[in-house]
Amino acid sequence: MADEPPIVTAALIIIGNEILSGRTRDANIPFLAQRLNDLGVRLGEVRIVPDLEEAIVEAVNDCRAAFDYVFTTGGIGPTHDDITAASIAKAFGLKLVRNPEAVERLHEHYGADELNVARLRMANTPEGAGLIENPVSKAPGFFVENVFVFAGVPTIMRAMFENVKHMISGGATMRSRTIAAFLLEGEVAEGLDRLQERYDDLEIGSYPFLRDGKLGTSVVLRGTASERIDEAARELIEHIRYLGGEPVEDSGEAR
Amino acid sequence: MADEPPIVTAALIIIGNEILSGRTRDANIPFLAQRLNDLGVRLGEVRIVPDLEEAIVEAVNDCRAAFDYVFTTGGIGPTHDDITAASIAKAFGLKLVRNPEAVERLHEHYGADELNVARLRMANTPEGAGLIENPVSKAPGFFVENVFVFAGVPTIMRAMFENVKHMISGGATMRSRTIAAFLLEGEVAEGLDRLQERYDDLEIGSYPFLRDGKLGTSVVLRGTASERIDEAARELIEHIRYLGGEPVEDSGEAR
Repeated sequence: MADEPPIVTAALIIIGNEILSGRTRDANIPFLAQRLNDLGVRLGEVRIVPDLEEAIVEAVNDCRAAFDYVFTTGGIGPTHDDITAASIAKAFGLKLVRNPEAVERLHEHYGADELNVARLRMANTPEGAGLIENPVSKAPGFFVENVFVFAGVPTIMRAMFENVKHMISGGATMRSRTIAAFLLEGEVAEGLDRLQERYDDLEIGSYPFLRDGKLGTSVVLRGTASERIDEAARELIEHIRYLGGEPVEDSGEAR
Repeated sequence: MADEPPIVTAALIIIGNEILSGRTRDANIPFLAQRLNDLGVRLGEVRIVPDLEEAIVEAVNDCRAAFDYVFTTGGIGPTHDDITAASIAKAFGLKLVRNPEAVERLHEHYGADELNVARLRMANTPEGAGLIENPVSKAPGFFVENVFVFAGVPTIMRAMFENVKHMISGGATMRSRTIAAFLLEGEVAEGLDRLQERYDDLEIGSYPFLRDGKLGTSVVLRGTASERIDEAARELIEHIRYLGGEPVEDSGEAR
């Protein structure tokens, strides 16, 4: 169909030893996944890599070739372990420069007295990068081509995302409905298999859950055409009743 | 030093549209990171990929070449969207077969009546794979060479990990201490930089935090030699006091 909107994809690269060591739990994946989805962009891969230049360069170069947009979080602070800007420059074969506009913003925030050598590092970007405003702590993020570089702190990351979303051209928006029932996955599996065959334009996913000590299954129907999702949901609801289950629409955190 | 234990590394591949859509938040990364660390294995990368054969094959082949151990979670249930076993077989160039031992375990659990076609899919493994016991819902995980295939449900994933840990040969165990203070990252950065130079056998990481409305910085000192970590910690504590901060040992979830 000529009018079908394109499928637009993104990858997220999380830079940080603190996630890989188990010290900190990532809080940015669900936010970014959901906001991208709202814009018609599908998160197609996430990579979590350590604070090592080689690992960051490889992940950035793999992802910027394979996805329409790449977002990175973490590693843009003032300390020696913040090596994201230098690594992005290397991935693109660009020089790392002190961005005058970024220096100005930091100067305004810290004043001459507190703008020390460490903080000035936060004004380093690959040559030609555009800046991303940081309303929380002023040190900007930046972007080069399709790669957007954010802070890792969730409140700052979110604010930066809102400041670049006008640069993101989404395609078809994924819609979804989730139907849950206290039936085991193995009980609904055969019916789901047939449903997926008939609705090959939808992604039908099945996820077991344990609630109030009882096992159940959530079925997620995802696709770009609401009426197809609604049709499939009607059939699924009938099938669950046929199996003796009580279907419940789950509007919680479902996407 | 000839007696230095080797650095042993691992990657985790999380298979699941439900994480990439933002519907579900992963709960396996911190567990695996910490348990591997206890065994002397460093988690060097995490990839989250969709339920697509091509994506799984690529991630598995990239990671099994680059890391000593690879763990996957998700996609081994009875439904059509559970394609992990077939994808791992493809990555290794092996046939997907019905594993007789796995069929026996499922038969014992479900009985002849309830062991339907869908549930029998859970007995499919790459040819020659070893099984991993699942004490919770019986459908086994499996391993091929250095790749261990687990369920995604956290309780099952954890039980499977405990069942394979005797097969994992760790190297040097990373130890760490975390010192926190209500100082800004930009204030401690220069001192940390010099500390890192003097302790180049340690990984020194700095992480901003917001607690009771006040900004602070946690510094994590990681390495294999406790006495080096303790030495660096003493210097760091002194430096924080010099800057007017009150250092606090943070033994919480630090690793």
